[in-house]
Amino acid sequence: MRAIVIHAPRDLRVENLPLDEIGPGDVRVRIEAGGICGSDLHYYHHGGFGAVRIKEPMVLGHEVSGIVDAVGAEVSRVAAGQRVSVSPSRPCGACRYCQEGRQNHCLDMRFYGSAMRFPHVQGAFRQVLVASEAQCHPVPGELTAGEAAMAEPLAVCLHAARRARPLLGRRVLVTGSGPIGALSIIAARRAGAAEIVATDVAEAPLAAARTVGADRTINIASEPDALVPYGADKGFFDVLIEASGNAQALIGALAALRPGAVIVQLGLGGDVTLPINTIVAKEIELRGTFRFHEEFGLAVELMAKRLVDVRPLLTATLPFEQAVEAFDLASDRTRAMKVQLAFA
Amino acid sequence: MRAIVIHAPRDLRVENLPLDEIGPGDVRVRIEAGGICGSDLHYYHHGGFGAVRIKEPMVLGHEVSGIVDAVGAEVSRVAAGQRVSVSPSRPCGACRYCQEGRQNHCLDMRFYGSAMRFPHVQGAFRQVLVASEAQCHPVPGELTAGEAAMAEPLAVCLHAARRARPLLGRRVLVTGSGPIGALSIIAARRAGAAEIVATDVAEAPLAAARTVGADRTINIASEPDALVPYGADKGFFDVLIEASGNAQALIGALAALRPGAVIVQLGLGGDVTLPINTIVAKEIELRGTFRFHEEFGLAVELMAKRLVDVRPLLTATLPFEQAVEAFDLASDRTRAMKVQLAFA
Amino acid sequence: MRAIVIHAPRDLRVENLPLDEIGPGDVRVRIEAGGICGSDLHYYHHGGFGAVRIKEPMVLGHEVSGIVDAVGAEVSRVAAGQRVSVSPSRPCGACRYCQEGRQNHCLDMRFYGSAMRFPHVQGAFRQVLVASEAQCHPVPGELTAGEAAMAEPLAVCLHAARRARPLLGRRVLVTGSGPIGALSIIAARRAGAAEIVATDVAEAPLAAARTVGADRTINIASEPDALVPYGADKGFFDVLIEASGNAQALIGALAALRPGAVIVQLGLGGDVTLPINTIVAKEIELRGTFRFHEEFGLAVELMAKRLVDVRPLLTATLPFEQAVEAFDLASDRTRAMKVQLAFA
Amino acid sequence: MRAIVIHAPRDLRVENLPLDEIGPGDVRVRIEAGGICGSDLHYYHHGGFGAVRIKEPMVLGHEVSGIVDAVGAEVSRVAAGQRVSVSPSRPCGACRYCQEGRQNHCLDMRFYGSAMRFPHVQGAFRQVLVASEAQCHPVPGELTAGEAAMAEPLAVCLHAARRARPLLGRRVLVTGSGPIGALSIIAARRAGAAEIVATDVAEAPLAAARTVGADRTINIASEPDALVPYGADKGFFDVLIEASGNAQALIGALAALRPGAVIVQLGLGGDVTLPINTIVAKEIELRGTFRFHEEFGLAVELMAKRLVDVRPLLTATLPFEQAVEAFDLASDRTRAMKVQLAFA
Repeated sequence: MRAIVIHAPRDLRVENLPLDEIGPGDVRVRIEAGGICGSDLHYYHHGGFGAVRIKEPMVLGHEVSGIVDAVGAEVSRVAAGQRVSVSPSRPCGACRYCQEGRQNHCLDMRFYGSAMRFPHVQGAFRQVLVASEAQCHPVPGELTAGEAAMAEPLAVCLHAARRARPLLGRRVLVTGSGPIGALSIIAARRAGAAEIVATDVAEAPLAAARTVGADRTINIASEPDALVPYGADKGFFDVLIEASGNAQALIGALAALRPGAVIVQLGLGGDVTLPINTIVAKEIELRGTFRFHEEFGLAVELMAKRLVDVRPLLTATLPFEQAVEAFDLASDRTRAMKVQLAFA
Repeated sequence: MRAIVIHAPRDLRVENLPLDEIGPGDVRVRIEAGGICGSDLHYYHHGGFGAVRIKEPMVLGHEVSGIVDAVGAEVSRVAAGQRVSVSPSRPCGACRYCQEGRQNHCLDMRFYGSAMRFPHVQGAFRQVLVASEAQCHPVPGELTAGEAAMAEPLAVCLHAARRARPLLGRRVLVTGSGPIGALSIIAARRAGAAEIVATDVAEAPLAAARTVGADRTINIASEPDALVPYGADKGFFDVLIEASGNAQALIGALAALRPGAVIVQLGLGGDVTLPINTIVAKEIELRGTFRFHEEFGLAVELMAKRLVDVRPLLTATLPFEQAVEAFDLASDRTRAMKVQLAFA
Repeated sequence: MRAIVIHAPRDLRVENLPLDEIGPGDVRVRIEAGGICGSDLHYYHHGGFGAVRIKEPMVLGHEVSGIVDAVGAEVSRVAAGQRVSVSPSRPCGACRYCQEGRQNHCLDMRFYGSAMRFPHVQGAFRQVLVASEAQCHPVPGELTAGEAAMAEPLAVCLHAARRARPLLGRRVLVTGSGPIGALSIIAARRAGAAEIVATDVAEAPLAAARTVGADRTINIASEPDALVPYGADKGFFDVLIEASGNAQALIGALAALRPGAVIVQLGLGGDVTLPINTIVAKEIELRGTFRFHEEFGLAVELMAKRLVDVRPLLTATLPFEQAVEAFDLASDRTRAMKVQLAFA
Repeated sequence: MRAIVIHAPRDLRVENLPLDEIGPGDVRVRIEAGGICGSDLHYYHHGGFGAVRIKEPMVLGHEVSGIVDAVGAEVSRVAAGQRVSVSPSRPCGACRYCQEGRQNHCLDMRFYGSAMRFPHVQGAFRQVLVASEAQCHPVPGELTAGEAAMAEPLAVCLHAARRARPLLGRRVLVTGSGPIGALSIIAARRAGAAEIVATDVAEAPLAAARTVGADRTINIASEPDALVPYGADKGFFDVLIEASGNAQALIGALAALRPGAVIVQLGLGGDVTLPINTIVAKEIELRGTFRFHEEFGLAVELMAKRLVDVRPLLTATLPFEQAVEAFDLASDRTRAMKVQLAFA
C-alpha cells in the first residue's frame, strides 16, 4: 500500500506502508478521494503550527472517502462494496468530556494525521485504511467520492455554525473565503442566515463565496473601507465567522458588529492583539470552535439530501502520486479552493 | 450646592454649582453617600481611559444614595423623606437597543459622570441631585446610606454574573480582587457557584475576598505557579470572571479553564494579546460585560433582603470636602476596598 | 370603501366603511391581497375561540399587502407607489414587555381583526387601510401581492421555529399540515432541520407538505401506527411543531420524541389532557408560541431573496365581493391551503 | 443482613437478605441512614404509580448514606471508614444518551428500588449495600448521616433548578411545600432567586417552607384567591416549580405567571388537563425534570460547605425495624417532612 508521508517541511514523500490488521469492530476501506486541508498545508510548509510540530514521519490526511473492502465480525452497519465517508475522529468514549457529550475535547482523542500527541496519529492519505465502524458513514450513490470526502471540513463548519447563536434570520459576516470560509457560508445559509457578507483579500475565493451563497463579497485589500458603513448605530452584524486566521480581519470587523454579537473563531493563527475595551463596551462574545462530533454524520446527511451542495468548491483532483504538485496547487489561493487526491 | 469636579488629571476641585430645575417626572435627592469607582480614579489620575477623555470640567461620581427632598407632579413611586439609591443610567427607551431590552447599549444613553459623549454627562458627586423617577429606587430602612450607594457596582457584577453561564454548581475563578472582583465573588456565590478561587497581587484585597466568600485565595505575585495544578486534564474552572483589567491575569488563567469555559471580561485595560489557538482548541468563550439595566433594582432588593452583604467592602467614608484625600486613599489597593464620600 | 365585516357566526357581510384619517406618521395603502387565516375562520364559524368572542361588528383580516397611496409628513422609509406588506401588529413600545423586547406580549397591543380587547381592533380586509409607518414593509418587485400577503403567517412560523431549539441538523415532526403546518415545514427547513416528518388526517395538506419540503408524510388517520417505530430507544424526534390544535396529535406524538425534546405548540384548541408523568420522565418541554415581532420583516426578506418560497401554498384568489364563498373554500381542508381575497 | 421489602400495597416487611459479592470496582457500605421518598410511599400505598408497578418483592429505598466497610481492589477514591453518600443511579455510560451527557435518560439505567424495569432493581434500605465506586461520594465529618442521606432528593431539586432558566434575580413560585418543594426552595434560593412564594394546602409544610427561605407562604386551601393579585399586567412570576403533582396547583398558577415563564414540573401525578390556549398566548414553557446526574456530587458539596442547610427538614429518625410506623409517619403531611430510618 502506498501512502503520503511528511518527513520535514517541504519533504513530502509517497511511500510504501504495510497493511493494518482488521479487528472485529473494524472496517477496511479502499480510499478513493482525499482532500488537502489547511493543517496538511501547515505540516507541508512549516512542519506544524504553534506548539504542534512533527517529530517523526507522519502520514497526512483526514478528509477521505472510499469503498468498503472488508469488515470485522462484529460490524453490522456497514457492508463491503458501500461507499463511506470516514471520520478522522476517534474519541475514547470514557473520559469525562466524552461522558459530557463533548467528544471533540476527549482526553484520549485519536485524530488522523495529527501531531498533537506523540507518537503521532498516522493519517488517511493511503490506499487502504482500517477504521472503526463508528468512523464509517455510508454515503448514498448520488454523491461522488469527492463530495463524500468533503464531509469532514463541512462538519467543522456545521459545528462552527452551531457554536454561533441560532442563525435563523441573522446577519452574518464571514472573514476569509477559502474552503473553510466558503463552507461556513454554506452552513450559515443552511441554518437560515438572512444576510451573508464575505470578505477576503483575493478575488478567486470571493467568486467562490458568491457561488455558494454570499449576498455580498468584499475584497478588503482593494476596498479597505467597505465595512465602515456597517458600523453605524453601533454595528450591523449579529455574528462574525472568522475563518482567515488573520488578526487584522478580526480586529477590522469589530466596529461592524452589533452589541452582543458573537464571533466564532475558526481560523488558527498566532497571537491576536485585541482591543479589550471594545469587547467589553459592546459585550461582544469571542468563541473558539474546534473540530466536530455528531456533525460528521450530519454533513453526510445534508449533502445526501442535497440540502447543501459543496460541488462548486471542488477545484481539482490529482492522482495521489502527484501529491507534491497537488499540495502546491492547494497552497495557491488564487487558483484553488479544495484540491483532492485520487487514490483509486 | 457643592460638587466635586475634575478639570484635568490630578486637578480635582470642590466647587459651587447651581441647583437644577425639577421637572414633573423628576425627583430631587439630597445625596448622603457616594462611592469612588475605578473609572472615577481613571479620570482623576489620567483624565480618562482609552479614547474616553475629559474635554471640559465634569462632575464625577455615579454610585450614590440619598434622601428624597422633593418630587415632581407626575411622580408616584417615590416620596419625600425616603432613602433612595439612584441609578446613574438613563437610557432613551426608544432606540432599537432599548426596544430589544438591551438598554445598556442605548444609542442615546445618559450616564452620570461619563465623558463618553460631549458635552459630557455631569456626575452625581454633589449635594443635591435631580434625577428621573425611574432612576430612583427606594431603599428599606435597614440599609445604611453607604450600602445603598453600593447598588451600582453590585449591579455591574450581577450583570456580569448573568453574562456567564448559569452559575449553580459551577467552579469560578476570579482574577482581581478589588471592589469589582469582590462584588463578583458575592454575585457568583449568590448565584450558586460551588467553588470560588480568587487571585490578586496584593494581600489586602485577598483578605477581603475571603471575607465575602472565596473558598481559596491566591497571591499570584508570590505564588506564580499556584494555578498550574488546575490545568490537569485540560482544566478545572467553568468560568473566569476577569476583574483585574490586567492582560497577564487573563492569559495566565487560560490553562486552568476547562474546554468550553466562559470568560466574563469586566476589567478595562488596553490591548490584550491572546493566544488565539488556545481559545480555538479549547472552545473558550470570551464575553465582554458592560454596566447593567434591570440589575440595579435587583442589587437593591438583594441587599435589602440580606441575601447579599456588601458591608465588609466598605473601607472608609470621608467628608466630601476631603475628596482629594479620599481619591488618594481609594487609589491605594493595599489600604482600601471601597472608599465613599459623605455629602450630608 | 368596502370592507368585510363579521356580525355573528356565519353572518359575514361586505359593507361600506368611511376612510380613516392619515396622520403624520401614517401610510395609506390600497389593499391588493388578503389571506384568510384560521382565526378568521374561527370568527366566521363560531364567533371566536375560547374566551375571545365578537361583541360588536368587526372587520376581519390581518394578512394583507397593497400599494402605498399616500404617506404622512413624517414618513421617510416608504413612498407612494411601493408595494408593501402590512404587519397587523402595533405594540405600544413603552410597556414593560415592549421594553424587554417582547413586543408580542405588549400590554396595549393593537392587532388587526382581533376581538381580544373591546372595542375590538378592526381588521384589514378593506380596500384602503391606514397603518403606521412601522407596520409597512416594502416588498421587492419580484414578489406578487399574494406572496406579500403571506408575510404574516410566515412570520408566525418563523417565530415558532425560533421558539424551538436551534434547528440545524435536528429531526422535526410537524403535526397538522394545513397552512401553518406547511409554513412551519418551510421555516424548519430554512433553519436547517435535517429531517422533517409531517402528519395530517387529510391527503391534500400532506401533498402540500411534500411539495414544500417534508421528507416524509404520514396520514395518521389511515396509518395510525406509523409513528410507533420512531419510539424505539426512547424516541427519535428532537422537536415537535404542533400545528393541528388537536389534542390527540400532541399526545400521540409523545412516544416518538427523544428525552429532552421540545414541543412548540402553535395550534389553538380547547383543553388538552396531558400524561404528565411522560412529560416528567422524558424531560419534555412544551412551549407555547404566539404571533411574532421582528420576524415579520424577516419573512419579507426571506421571500424577497427566494430563501423561502410560499407559492406552492397559494390555492386560490377570489374577488373580495365573494368573501363568503372564499371563507367556505378556506374551511375545506381537502381542497384548500391558503385562500386569498383580491381587493384591487 | 436485614432489608425492607415491599411485597404488595401495604405489605412491607423487614426480611433477611444474603450479602452481595464485592467486585474489584465495588464498595461495601454499612448503611446508617435512609430517607423515605414519595416514590417509596407510592409503592407502599399503591404498589407503584402510573404504569410502574411492583411485580415481584422489591427492596425499597434510594436515599442512603453509610460507612465504607470494604473496597474492591481497583477502588481508589474511597477508603474503609469513610462516611459516604450513595447515589442510587448507575447509568451504563455507553448508550447514546450517556454519550450525550444525559445519563438520567440512560437506556440501561439501574436505579435503586425502582420497578421501572423487570426484574426490578433492588433498593438500598438494607444494612449492607454493595455499590460501584462511582456511586459513592465521600462526605466530610461535619455532616451527619441523616444529612448525607439527603443528597439524593437535594440532587433532584438542584437538577430541577437547572432545568429552569438561570434563577439569579428571578421571582419563583413553588407549588407544593413537602420535602421536594422545600428542597426546591433551598435550591432556588441558592441559585439566586430574588423572591420565592410557596403554596400548599397544609400548614406544617408551609412552616417548613418559611424556615428554609420562602419569602411568603400561602395556604391555598384557606386563601384560594391569594395568587390573584400576581396576575396583574399578565403575571408576576418568572418561574413555577411545581412540586405537588396536583393538577389544580399547576392550572391555578398560570394566571400568576409572566409571559414566557418556565414551569418546571417535578411532581408526578396522573393526567393533567391544561388550557392550551393560555400556554400558547403567554408563551409559557412547561418542562419536565427527572432525577439528576452530576447534581448528586454537587448536593454533597453544597451541604458540606454549608452553602445549603437541609437540617430543618429532618423531622424524625426511626429504627429500621419500625419501618411500617416510619412509612405511616412519612405519609402524614401534617406531621412530617422527611422521615429517615436508622440502620446502624
